Amino acid sequence: MLEAAERLHYVPSALAQRFARRKSGNLGVILPLVPKVRLFSTYYFSEILSGVGEEAGRHGYDLLLMFRKPDEKREYAMLFRTQKVDALIVLGSRDEPDERQALAELWRDGYPFCLVNQRFDEEPFPAVDADHESGSFQVVRHLAGQGCRRIAFVNGPLVYSNSADRLAGYRRALEASGLPFDPKRIYAGNYSRKSGLELAASIADAMRRGEVDGIFAGNDRMAIGIMQGLREFGLEAGADYALAGCDDSEGARMTDPQLTTLSVPFDRMGKLAARRLLAADETTWDTPILKLPVELIVRASTERFGSSSTTD
Amino acid sequence: MLEAAERLHYVPSALAQRFARRKSGNLGVILPLVPKVRLFSTYYFSEILSGVGEEAGRHGYDLLLMFRKPDEKREYAMLFRTQKVDALIVLGSRDEPDERQALAELWRDGYPFCLVNQRFDEEPFPAVDADHESGSFQVVRHLAGQGCRRIAFVNGPLVYSNSADRLAGYRRALEASGLPFDPKRIYAGNYSRKSGLELAASIADAMRRGEVDGIFAGNDRMAIGIMQGLREFGLEAGADYALAGCDDSEGARMTDPQLTTLSVPFDRMGKLAARRLLAADETTWDTPILKLPVELIVRASTERFGSSSTTD
Repeated sequence: MLEAAERLHYVPSALAQRFARRKSGNLGVILPLVPKVRLFSTYYFSEILSGVGEEAGRHGYDLLLMFRKPDEKREYAMLFRTQKVDALIVLGSRDEPDERQALAELWRDGYPFCLVNQRFDEEPFPAVDADHESGSFQVVRHLAGQGCRRIAFVNGPLVYSNSADRLAGYRRALEASGLPFDPKRIYAGNYSRKSGLELAASIADAMRRGEVDGIFAGNDRMAIGIMQGLREFGLEAGADYALAGCDDSEGARMTDPQLTTLSVPFDRMGKLAARRLLAADETTWDTPILKLPVELIVRASTERFGSSSTTD
Repeated sequence: MLEAAERLHYVPSALAQRFARRKSGNLGVILPLVPKVRLFSTYYFSEILSGVGEEAGRHGYDLLLMFRKPDEKREYAMLFRTQKVDALIVLGSRDEPDERQALAELWRDGYPFCLVNQRFDEEPFPAVDADHESGSFQVVRHLAGQGCRRIAFVNGPLVYSNSADRLAGYRRALEASGLPFDPKRIYAGNYSRKSGLELAASIADAMRRGEVDGIFAGNDRMAIGIMQGLREFGLEAGADYALAGCDDSEGARMTDPQLTTLSVPFDRMGKLAARRLLAADETTWDTPILKLPVELIVRASTERFGSSSTTD
């Protein structure tokens, strides 16, 4: 246990004592409280929570879900001091000063916690992340391989490290494909379907002017919104332009054409974060931040485009 | 508070005391632990939890999710005695002797709890339910109105009251339409897409023999499995047969043809169950069991069928 704790870079004696006592039997999960968004109904959170929940159940822990209001003061360490939780997973964490400070306090006091799908530059906070940079690189290389020369990137907010990672992968792939980077082709969404839908008009304009022939969206929901929005302008994914999303959510297999995307193992990320906290003995953590690979899934939204451009 | 408690049919002094003390600040939620099923990723649970979570967050409560293993002894009352929860919502509850007994103990001891989408005959257990009987009646009447004469019903397990309710509505609608009830047209699924897919071969057989021309499935997941499975046999929903599901999940709008279904307000059901427990002052409960209406949503999977049969 102590050895495992050391591998986890926690203050070992504190961790061992805490687990030995097992004060509450609760694994805490911090979630953002977003009005009108059905949090559990978004693929992202539901998959991570499924993984966390399965692992918690397996270890006999209950899940204590705590909703963090946007402007509320973060008091994560208090959850340990008042014995509400034995360990903490933080979801939907944003790189903002309050959040950094609350996490730094947890770290300093040796409380066992883990971020999922978020890193903080220059901070050693434990995290299970995915290799979004490499995923983004793969999908943009694929778009270039299908003949796209003017690839737009619809990104989410940069307070999430995965948004910054995808932007980096996008730029690296353009460079590797000999295509110029043009900031005009970066569109700002917020990971909702609606934000994709709302960007469709300006993307359609750019397409008509010949300035965009392929689109990579930072998640499937935005990609689906773009597909639906561009259809209103008579532009069909897989025929008039190539479109790729990210997440490989259920929706990506339900659109017509089906959506090329990146499979991100959110379920497994949640499971590993929980396992790291609840079963230190069976994990092998040599680094505070674990990055899982993502996989390119090619479907008709980019495939058809490629085959038709070849015959043109 | 006491008056509200009385309206809720709880032992009032116990309830009032418990809430006044607000021991844990946790609203407990019991969930079934099903191996390999990503619980939070199913529309049903994710919508209910979104409603419960929103209301809990609004009232400053945290959600304590507890996973109930299939063969585990139910000790719901213990959760109150050990002060893990102030109130309890039970999801995925099945009509089985152990479950009845555990709920009866909660009831007897005056602990505040609420079921969602489940009733127990002859028991006054508080519940927020939906009017599945009437929904089923509406959708089967609609199928009959589209010209279906041999309507199959793919049901889920009868340990869930909603399965029994839909069966009752199906039978009543056949009668109202002057169509005979034939037990051969009842198929047993388990609410998974896979179970619908696996029934497709025998349904295709029955269709070839002219014994089925319309299908009502107890949820969208089974309906989508049936649609996909029958396609393998060259049978298209909305053309060769009419198909309706239930839930109005995201998937129902993503299939081609889109799926006729029943909109069930799961999100609102979760919200009302939580509100009943956390904000007794603003609720008006004259009955232990509240049933919310469901709504028929007609889409191409039954519409096209109707129009093509008219021209035939």
